[in-house]
Amino acid sequence: MKPLPDLTDLPGALLASIGQRVDRIDTPSLVVDLDAMERNIQRMADFARKHGVRWRPHAKMHKSAEIALLLQRAGATGACVQKVAEAETLAAGGVNDIFISNEVVAAPKLLRVARMAAQLAARGGRLAIAVDSAEGIERLAEAMALAGSTHGIDVFVEIDVGQGRCGVPPGAPAVALALAVAHHARLRFAGLQAYHGRAQHFVSATERREAIAAAVRAAEHTRALIVAAGLPVPLVTGSGTGTLVHEAASGVYGELQAGSFLFMDADYARNEREPAQPAFEQALFVKTQVISVSDSHAVCDAGHKSHAIDSGLPTVALLPPERALRYANGGDEHGVLYADGPKARLPALGRMLWLVPGHCDPTVNLHDFLIGVRGGLAMGVVERIIRVDARGALT
Amino acid sequence: MKPLPDLTDLPGALLASIGQRVDRIDTPSLVVDLDAMERNIQRMADFARKHGVRWRPHAKMHKSAEIALLLQRAGATGACVQKVAEAETLAAGGVNDIFISNEVVAAPKLLRVARMAAQLAARGGRLAIAVDSAEGIERLAEAMALAGSTHGIDVFVEIDVGQGRCGVPPGAPAVALALAVAHHARLRFAGLQAYHGRAQHFVSATERREAIAAAVRAAEHTRALIVAAGLPVPLVTGSGTGTLVHEAASGVYGELQAGSFLFMDADYARNEREPAQPAFEQALFVKTQVISVSDSHAVCDAGHKSHAIDSGLPTVALLPPERALRYANGGDEHGVLYADGPKARLPALGRMLWLVPGHCDPTVNLHDFLIGVRGGLAMGVVERIIRVDARGALT
Repeated sequence: MKPLPDLTDLPGALLASIGQRVDRIDTPSLVVDLDAMERNIQRMADFARKHGVRWRPHAKMHKSAEIALLLQRAGATGACVQKVAEAETLAAGGVNDIFISNEVVAAPKLLRVARMAAQLAARGGRLAIAVDSAEGIERLAEAMALAGSTHGIDVFVEIDVGQGRCGVPPGAPAVALALAVAHHARLRFAGLQAYHGRAQHFVSATERREAIAAAVRAAEHTRALIVAAGLPVPLVTGSGTGTLVHEAASGVYGELQAGSFLFMDADYARNEREPAQPAFEQALFVKTQVISVSDSHAVCDAGHKSHAIDSGLPTVALLPPERALRYANGGDEHGVLYADGPKARLPALGRMLWLVPGHCDPTVNLHDFLIGVRGGLAMGVVERIIRVDARGALT
Repeated sequence: MKPLPDLTDLPGALLASIGQRVDRIDTPSLVVDLDAMERNIQRMADFARKHGVRWRPHAKMHKSAEIALLLQRAGATGACVQKVAEAETLAAGGVNDIFISNEVVAAPKLLRVARMAAQLAARGGRLAIAVDSAEGIERLAEAMALAGSTHGIDVFVEIDVGQGRCGVPPGAPAVALALAVAHHARLRFAGLQAYHGRAQHFVSATERREAIAAAVRAAEHTRALIVAAGLPVPLVTGSGTGTLVHEAASGVYGELQAGSFLFMDADYARNEREPAQPAFEQALFVKTQVISVSDSHAVCDAGHKSHAIDSGLPTVALLPPERALRYANGGDEHGVLYADGPKARLPALGRMLWLVPGHCDPTVNLHDFLIGVRGGLAMGVVERIIRVDARGALT
């Protein structure tokens, strides 16, 4: 038996400490390759600049004020969120320009929205929100009145451009809502929310292109109708990491909401590549350890409480193809590893492995911390520990 | 428009407050019907007493020290956990008898285990852990020596009784490990861990019965071999909510680890019922609100960040069959509702609905709080707010 390593630098339940070597990070834990992440940010900033569009990365992915501010310093306009509680968390963390790209209809939540809008405006920022119903607009206006807001709030009308979820149909229904928004003194009509979420995950590049071409036509047509009704449309916003090439080139979308580009995941890795897409690289990994080995398989300590499996199981990273390991679902706390490659061998007991999660957003939401590593996953050190501030911010 | 309700009793991001009516709980949130939960506890206590077996509910499901202590007061022997960090959290919350029913091989974690064993022993409790390799036993013994433990730790040898995950094969390999455990002064051989996790979710009652019959034979045979080798086998432990009828009646298993019985879920509801199984009822719900309605569907604010979907999508509860709604996956933060029943209508904007999660364990792990309601989901009030202490305790 090899002697135990010095344990004194690992107090209690801490996952990692600043300056610690990568091989000492506890498992399972969520590790960000900071070098890869920063290259992804640079690629996105360059891409947006080249196309003359703004970018407002979706913070529902990273859920961290620190990362939202990092993205703003790199040129991002602000942050998107899906939930009021996410917006509150980012606002508390110093983010001043936030768009809740989702419908909110509960009166108590809308009062929180109204108060936050006033707070952000008072410090020179802004809050925006999406609507897709006349009743939602009335409820929002009433909350803004109740809060005594003098600054108002930016309101985007959401149109369904193929997602089949929220949003009114493009065309006349959206015009009616835009006019309804403009009718209220405290609501500013800010444009159209036009996000095709499903298209992000179409594996076929052709299908993605066709889906977004239809979305662009729908948004453009709706915009023209609203303008014809006498109302300017300041912005069409939407897009994601899988399709941003098309929205950016459309001349219709003025803002990209892509968030996953920052970390990427196994699901996006399966997408057929668009030549024009920036070469985003994997920056998010689950570090895991082999805790059991049998003749037929090995078992690691990362199950679906460590990574979300809604978009498929994780892949085992950083192994040469001939030594590939296949990850099979072992339940909440285990992954079962099979040696499928021609020269593959089962990993030894205690071996550390790196998983690429199937879907980055809900994976980050399982963890309280992102362990930021500088210098690569083989020899790097922990540079910072980033709190997932809005983890579990569901309301 | 109806006026907004009084909002002053809902500060900030609080989900609920004690004494509040059910209809005021924020969404999405995880709500426990305390009356149903307590009936489930009584059913389990009665069942265990009738069969003369101990029960040690798996806290990987509820992750709450408060609930672990509640179960102990009702007769449970202690708590099972899967992770060292879960054990630490329960120990900090006052739970004294904890079994880590899983393999731990990282030296820093084993030192935490050794220290915790000493701490629990010092206050009259005990810590137990599972092993399935000679190296794992050596590592554990070394950590116990390093910690200078005088009390020792209970060690269960895990055998694979059909799960295909951790554990050595039944028979000779388990005998060798039992003897290896007994060789170390600070390790006490405590028996066999023999859990068939997959069998819990076999829909067919016949398949579950046959799987556990084989598990019982394997455990009984292995126990006899260890006894023949001169080592007493104090306990065979395992079982879950889907199969506990069979382990309880086996005469071989002395302890049941079932945890899901407390809350239940949509996956267990699909299982063909065993006549002898206690009539556990659904006690865990996600409260959600309709935030968007179109001609074809409605959208609620609970997606797979609110409930785990590894064992299928949630069902919509508390609706008469002719008005059933079907929940379809709408991504991280949305559920899409279709009116499939013959008289079904889409719910109105703002309507509150109750979902039964597909799988209780990883659903609880998404939430920081369980909102405990007394008096039913229609007219009840919030009686207590239970912290999910070990949420995200992965290491």
